[in-house]
Amino acid sequence: MPMINLKITKGESTAAQKAQVIEEMTEVLQRVMGKNPETTIVIIDEVETDNWGIGGQTVTQRRRQT
Amino acid sequence: MPMINLKITKGESTAAQKAQVIEEMTEVLQRVMGKNPETTIVIIDEVETDNWGIGGQTVTQRRRQT
Amino acid sequence: MPMINLKITKGESTAAQKAQVIEEMTEVLQRVMGKNPETTIVIIDEVETDNWGIGGQTVTQRRRQT
Amino acid sequence: MPMINLKITKGESTAAQKAQVIEEMTEVLQRVMGKNPETTIVIIDEVETDNWGIGGQTVTQRRRQT
Amino acid sequence: MPMINLKITKGESTAAQKAQVIEEMTEVLQRVMGKNPETTIVIIDEVETDNWGIGGQTVTQRRRQT
Amino acid sequence: MPMINLKITKGESTAAQKAQVIEEMTEVLQRVMGKNPETTIVIIDEVETDNWGIGGQTVTQRRRQT
Repeated sequence: MPMINLKITKGESTAAQKAQVIEEMTEVLQRVMGKNPETTIVIIDEVETDNWGIGGQTVTQRRRQT
Repeated sequence: MPMINLKITKGESTAAQKAQVIEEMTEVLQRVMGKNPETTIVIIDEVETDNWGIGGQTVTQRRRQT
Repeated sequence: MPMINLKITKGESTAAQKAQVIEEMTEVLQRVMGKNPETTIVIIDEVETDNWGIGGQTVTQRRRQT
Repeated sequence: MPMINLKITKGESTAAQKAQVIEEMTEVLQRVMGKNPETTIVIIDEVETDNWGIGGQTVTQRRRQT
Repeated sequence: MPMINLKITKGESTAAQKAQVIEEMTEVLQRVMGKNPETTIVIIDEVETDNWGIGGQTVTQRRRQT
Repeated sequence: MPMINLKITKGESTAAQKAQVIEEMTEVLQRVMGKNPETTIVIIDEVETDNWGIGGQTVTQRRRQT
């Protein structure tokens, strides 16, 4: 029944990587906290770099500088 | 003033269905909890089936198996 | 499999009201969108009035003025 | 380390406006609460007007009426 | 820079279990997606069983029945 | 109508600081994006340091080390 919401920058992870993260995070909750994997939900939000800020700048701005 | 965030899989609900859910959920909060409908906000996130996991698998994987 | 997150001000709704809202919102998603009620999750966050702002003021401040 | 999630309607703000909001909100948390800007995260979700409800109607419906 | 939000029922996990979940989920994102662990944030919300619904009932109601 | 959700560590900000952040963030959205302050909602979640992870450790663990 637990619920995981993961936010990452958009377009940088493949469907296979996302599937593996979902599988492994579900396993972590089962092994460490005894949570039922059948009702564990994982939702991945992929966010545009224009819409993600860190250190007061967007990720788009940060990458341009490097 | 209450705030509802609904997450569903993407592309499976029409604009009319979404409008009806917004109308009815707002009415439920008014009738049951006395919340002012004028300031009740409902935000619907539609999530790709690659980005939604349940039972340790993505919804994409689950549907392929059936 | 849908997921509803409801945010309301704290301490103003009884357990019975919360249970009724959960029941009715789950029914709305089933009837309007065909969602399976068995896997519909509803999570209610109750927020202190000091931590809820509207119109640039906390709810605590607004209520003091009335 | 604080985390800000901003939800606005989609396609109504430019990249420059979003960057400025990220910069200023990060500065507000630093100045008012002493939060380290280097680890302050801001995530902006842009939501379709069909998926945003207020007053029991979608924003799409509301705008059509005006 | 990724952000994980985990919602679980309240008072059923120890500080040690929560710390281990944080450590392992951060490691999963690093190994599978190449995310920098130094800027990976995990926030755990613990939710009262009166405030968590599944199958149209609160977890409190469900447990009473068993 | 915009919605801001701010997550900070618990018990480190006064009611006055939270009220000021709400006021200023609402003003930023009005000035930069033209958003109506009357319908701008800000919700602050205060999170226990045991429930906040960064760099694979809880904030509780990090502070103990310093």
